[in-house]
Amino acid sequence: MVKLTPEMKEDIQKVRVLPLATASNDKTPNVIPIGIAEIDDSDDKDDYIHIMNNFFLKTIANIKENPKVALYIWSPETAGCIQIKGEAVEITAKGDVYDGMTGRVKEAKPGLPMKEIIRIKITDIFNCKSGKDAGQKIL
Amino acid sequence: MVKLTPEMKEDIQKVRVLPLATASNDKTPNVIPIGIAEIDDSDDKDDYIHIMNNFFLKTIANIKENPKVALYIWSPETAGCIQIKGEAVEITAKGDVYDGMTGRVKEAKPGLPMKEIIRIKITDIFNCKSGKDAGQKIL
Repeated sequence: MVKLTPEMKEDIQKVRVLPLATASNDKTPNVIPIGIAEIDDSDDKDDYIHIMNNFFLKTIANIKENPKVALYIWSPETAGCIQIKGEAVEITAKGDVYDGMTGRVKEAKPGLPMKEIIRIKITDIFNCKSGKDAGQKIL
Repeated sequence: MVKLTPEMKEDIQKVRVLPLATASNDKTPNVIPIGIAEIDDSDDKDDYIHIMNNFFLKTIANIKENPKVALYIWSPETAGCIQIKGEAVEITAKGDVYDGMTGRVKEAKPGLPMKEIIRIKITDIFNCKSGKDAGQKIL
């Protein structure tokens, strides 16, 4: 049960590019910049992040064999630095989640392949701001 | 045998913060922003990246149980986006590598704990620029 705080949501809005890390079954980490992520906070218990697969290669292969992901929210404009860990619970190319997000992205960034949406359940949030509390679990 | 190109080295100079990804033995990815990385290109066969452990928590635990790391070099100022995969081959708090890097960092950013230097051998370089060639191996 992890719900983002209002301050975390504000920081997520401020970040244009964020690093998405995955790992293969042989424990090889992978990290890529992604530019499109949306929060779904409509569930009472958990928050979700939706990301779009446009050009994923190792990332999507990793998620299919190991659903664990990590990303961080930080830019010079954010109040904090949070690392979000989560688990991909759905990969879909149809339905309300897909139609909603692709509709919004199509307007903002036309021409993307928009192959599928990956729905990630947030499981943990850690502090990633430099200093003695770096790495500590927040939620 | 991976040697960075001059363009890659220029891009690395342009990036102030970069994401460093590791993975634990149970395949949980971790990713944190790091601000200090140096290239060692003095070896004929391989290039190395040196990073400094100031406030690492999960990152250093992961590296000790699984030396594989990934990071990317990208900012709005870089020519390209490269993902570097590598393997930590040494963790040291003494010797020439440690003394050299901590000496330079002490002048630029005083007050850091500078616990140890992690020497990473670069094993692979991938393209991480958005588009149809995203994820492809370059070197």
